[in-house]
Amino acid sequence: MKGIVTPELVIGLLKAKGFAELRKFLSELMPADIAALFGELSDEREDFGEKELTLTFRILPKDLAADVFAYMDADLQIMLINGFSDRELSAVLDELYLDDTVDMIEDMPANVVTRILKVADKEKRKQINELLKYPDDSAGSIMTTEFVYFYGTDTVKEALTRIKAVGIVKETVYTCYVTEQKKLIGSVSLLDLVVADANELIKNVMDTTVISVRSHEDQEKVANLFSKHDLAAVPVVDDEDRILGIITFDDVMDVMREENAEDMAMMSAVVPVEGNYFDTSIFKHAAKRMPWLLILMLSATITGAITNHFEALIASIPLLVAFMPMLTDTGGNCGSQTSSLIIQGMAVEEIQPKDFFRVVFKEFRVAIICAAVLAAVNFGRIMLFYKNPLLAAVVSVALVCTVILSKLLGCVLPMLAKRLGIDPAIMSAPLLSTLVDSCSTLIFFSFASKLMAF
Amino acid sequence: MKGIVTPELVIGLLKAKGFAELRKFLSELMPADIAALFGELSDEREDFGEKELTLTFRILPKDLAADVFAYMDADLQIMLINGFSDRELSAVLDELYLDDTVDMIEDMPANVVTRILKVADKEKRKQINELLKYPDDSAGSIMTTEFVYFYGTDTVKEALTRIKAVGIVKETVYTCYVTEQKKLIGSVSLLDLVVADANELIKNVMDTTVISVRSHEDQEKVANLFSKHDLAAVPVVDDEDRILGIITFDDVMDVMREENAEDMAMMSAVVPVEGNYFDTSIFKHAAKRMPWLLILMLSATITGAITNHFEALIASIPLLVAFMPMLTDTGGNCGSQTSSLIIQGMAVEEIQPKDFFRVVFKEFRVAIICAAVLAAVNFGRIMLFYKNPLLAAVVSVALVCTVILSKLLGCVLPMLAKRLGIDPAIMSAPLLSTLVDSCSTLIFFSFASKLMAF
Repeated sequence: MKGIVTPELVIGLLKAKGFAELRKFLSELMPADIAALFGELSDEREDFGEKELTLTFRILPKDLAADVFAYMDADLQIMLINGFSDRELSAVLDELYLDDTVDMIEDMPANVVTRILKVADKEKRKQINELLKYPDDSAGSIMTTEFVYFYGTDTVKEALTRIKAVGIVKETVYTCYVTEQKKLIGSVSLLDLVVADANELIKNVMDTTVISVRSHEDQEKVANLFSKHDLAAVPVVDDEDRILGIITFDDVMDVMREENAEDMAMMSAVVPVEGNYFDTSIFKHAAKRMPWLLILMLSATITGAITNHFEALIASIPLLVAFMPMLTDTGGNCGSQTSSLIIQGMAVEEIQPKDFFRVVFKEFRVAIICAAVLAAVNFGRIMLFYKNPLLAAVVSVALVCTVILSKLLGCVLPMLAKRLGIDPAIMSAPLLSTLVDSCSTLIFFSFASKLMAF
Repeated sequence: MKGIVTPELVIGLLKAKGFAELRKFLSELMPADIAALFGELSDEREDFGEKELTLTFRILPKDLAADVFAYMDADLQIMLINGFSDRELSAVLDELYLDDTVDMIEDMPANVVTRILKVADKEKRKQINELLKYPDDSAGSIMTTEFVYFYGTDTVKEALTRIKAVGIVKETVYTCYVTEQKKLIGSVSLLDLVVADANELIKNVMDTTVISVRSHEDQEKVANLFSKHDLAAVPVVDDEDRILGIITFDDVMDVMREENAEDMAMMSAVVPVEGNYFDTSIFKHAAKRMPWLLILMLSATITGAITNHFEALIASIPLLVAFMPMLTDTGGNCGSQTSSLIIQGMAVEEIQPKDFFRVVFKEFRVAIICAAVLAAVNFGRIMLFYKNPLLAAVVSVALVCTVILSKLLGCVLPMLAKRLGIDPAIMSAPLLSTLVDSCSTLIFFSFASKLMAF
C-alpha cells in the first residue's frame, strides 16, 4: 500500500490542487506511515515547508489527523503547532491520548508548551501538569490517567454501558479496574464482561490477583514485569494502593527500545541522549562521544607509563612489543564477553545481587577453560615461528593470567556498580579494556624481565 | 505477595502434608511467579526433586497448572512430563496455547517430543507439525494458529456468540479477522463489536486497512512493525493473502528481548546461543566464547608483525611503545562508538541502505571534531611531560588519522555486512578494534620512522 503514495505524488497533487484525491490516497495509509511520509517530505523536499505541511494535514480526516500527529517527530509537531489556530490546536489535543500529549510536551520548547497548556481545558491542564511531575524513567512518567474503572457493586450491564459511553479509548479499555474507596481491588477484562451474565455483579466476575506497580518504580522493572507475566496493561498505584493510572503494552515496547538503545550506547562509550541518529547534529554527536574518549585516552596513558618503566627491557628485546596487542586485545575481549553477558543478565533480572559468588565461581571456571585453550594455541604458534620455548612460556603464562583476571573483572565490576547504584553498563568493553590493558602489560613485562632479561 | 511464599514454606508444607494450605498459598501467586519458585526450589534444594515437583504441580488448580507449565524452563517441563501419566500430559497440553506448545517442543529432546505428539489429538498434532516447519526467526515460527475469524456477512450478534463459544483464547480475541474465500479482508476489535448494533453486518463495522505480514518475514521486522504502529496483534498471511495465524504483542516482546540479547552477545564476540546464563554449562559457555577469541587472538598477531617490522626503530626509541596503547584504544573506542550507533539504527530501521553516503559523510564530520579535540589534548599532554614538539606532533597526527579511519570503518563495515546479508552486529567492537589496531600501529610507526629515526 505505502509504496503507492510517493513523496512526488503528494507534491504533484498539492501543486495541482487535487486535494480530494490526496485525501483519498492518504486515508488508505496507516497513521505511522503518513507521519513517516511527512517526515521524509519535510527532510528532503524544499517545496514542502510549514505551509505545505499544514495544508496537507488539514486535508486529513479529523480522527486520522490526530493519530498522525501523535506519530510525528517533535520538529514536525512544532512546525504544525506554529501553523495552527488555537481552535485547531485544541481540536488535535482533544483527540490525543493524555500520555502521548505529555510525551510530546517533554520534547517541546517552552513557548510551544505554554501555548499547548493555554488552549487545553482546565481539567486536562491539571492532569498534564501532574504527569509532568513524575521523574524521567519512572512508571508514573509513562502511564496514562485515562482508564476505565468500576465499583464492585456495578453490574456487568452497567459496566458495558460505561465502556460504550467512554468511546474512543481503545488503548486502555481491554482491562478495566475495580476500585473501592479509590483503592484497587481487582481487574476485569472486556472479554470477561462480554462472556458474563448481564446482571452479574462486577465483584463476582473480577480477578482479585492484580499485578500493580508503584508510580516511582523504574520503567525497566515495569518492562520486565510485562514480559515475565505477558501483560497487556498494568495499573499504577500510590503508596496507599490507590490507582493513579495505567501503563499499556505499547508504551512498554517503547521503553524496551529506549533502554536497549541506552545500554548499547553506554556499552560503546557513548553518553546516551534522546533523539534519533539523523536528527542529532554532528556537534551533539561529538559531544556525546567526547567525554568517554577523553577519559579513556587519558587512562590509557597508565599503560604507557608501565611500558616506560620497562624501557630498558624493550630496548634490549624489542620483539616483546609484538605480543602486546595480542595480550591486551584478548584480555579486553575476554572481559567484554563476560561483562556484556552479566550486564544483560542483570537487566532482565535473571542475575540477582545474591548470585554474586555463584557468578564469580562460574566465570572463574569458564576462564580457566578459555585460558588453557588460548595459551596452548599461542604456545604452539610461537614455537612454530620463533622456536623459542622461553618466549613461548612467558607469553602463554601472561596470557593465562590476563584471561582469568579479565573475566573476573568482567563480572565483578558490573555487579559492584549495580550494588553502588551506578548503571552497570558503564563497566563494559571500553572501560574494561583500558583497565585490562594496564594489568596485562604489567604482568607480561614483569614475567619477561624476571625470566628473559640478561 | 510473592515474598510470603518462600521456598522454605513450600518444603515445610510438603513435608507436613499440608496440601490444602499449600494449594491456597500458591493460588494467590501469578503463574510466572509460581514457575520461578519451582525453578528456585529445584535449583537450590536437594529435597525438591522430580517427585516433589510433580506432587506440588498436582496440587495446583487445573487451569492455573497449565499456565504455570507454560512459564517453566525446559528442564522443569521435561522433569514434569517424565513424571506425568499420558492422561495428565494430555490434560496440560489441552490447556496450553498452540504457540506455547510449539515453543516448548523446540527445546525438548526427541523422546519427549515423540511422547507429546503421541498424546496430542490428531488435529493438534497436524497443527504442531505445520508450525514446526517454519524457519527459526520467521513470522510463521512465532505465530499461533488459534484466532477468531468471521465472514463479512455475519452479524455482530453472531460474532459475539462465536467469541463466547470459543472460550479461553484471551490472548487472541481482542482483534478478530474477517475473511472471504479464506482471504483476509478486514479486522474488527472486540470493542467495535461491543459498541456496534447487534444486527449490524460485520462488513459494515470492520476496518479494511489491516497491516499483515507474510509467514517468511523476519521476526525482527515484525517487531519493528509492532512498535511503529503500536499494534496488539498482526495477522500472518501466505503469498495469496490467506490468513494462516496471528502474532500477539506478548510474543513480540519476547522477540525484542531475544534479538536484543543476540545483538549484545555478537557485539561482545560471543556466539549467541539460546538458554539463560545459569542453565548453560561452563563448557558450553566456553564453547560460545572460544571461536571469536581464537580468531581475534590470531588476527592480533598482524599488529605484532607490524611492530616486528619496526624492531630497529623501537630498539632505538623505546619510548614510542608508550603511545601504542593510547592510540589503539582510542581508535577502538571511536570505531565501536560509531558501529554500535549504526548497528542499533539499522536494527530499528531508522538507518536504511539508501542512507549510506549520508551516514558516511555525517560520521566523517563527527570524526574531524573528535579528532581535533583529542589531538589537541594529547599534544598538550606530551608537551607538558616530555617537552618534545616532534614527538607530540607525530603522536597527534597519527591520532587524527586513527580517529578518522576508525569512525569511517565503524560505519562502512556494518552497512556493508548488511548489504551482503551478514548480520551487521559481527562488525562491532572486537573485530573493529583488532582491525583498527593494525592500522593505527602502522600509521604511527610509519610517521615516526620517517620523522624521528636517525
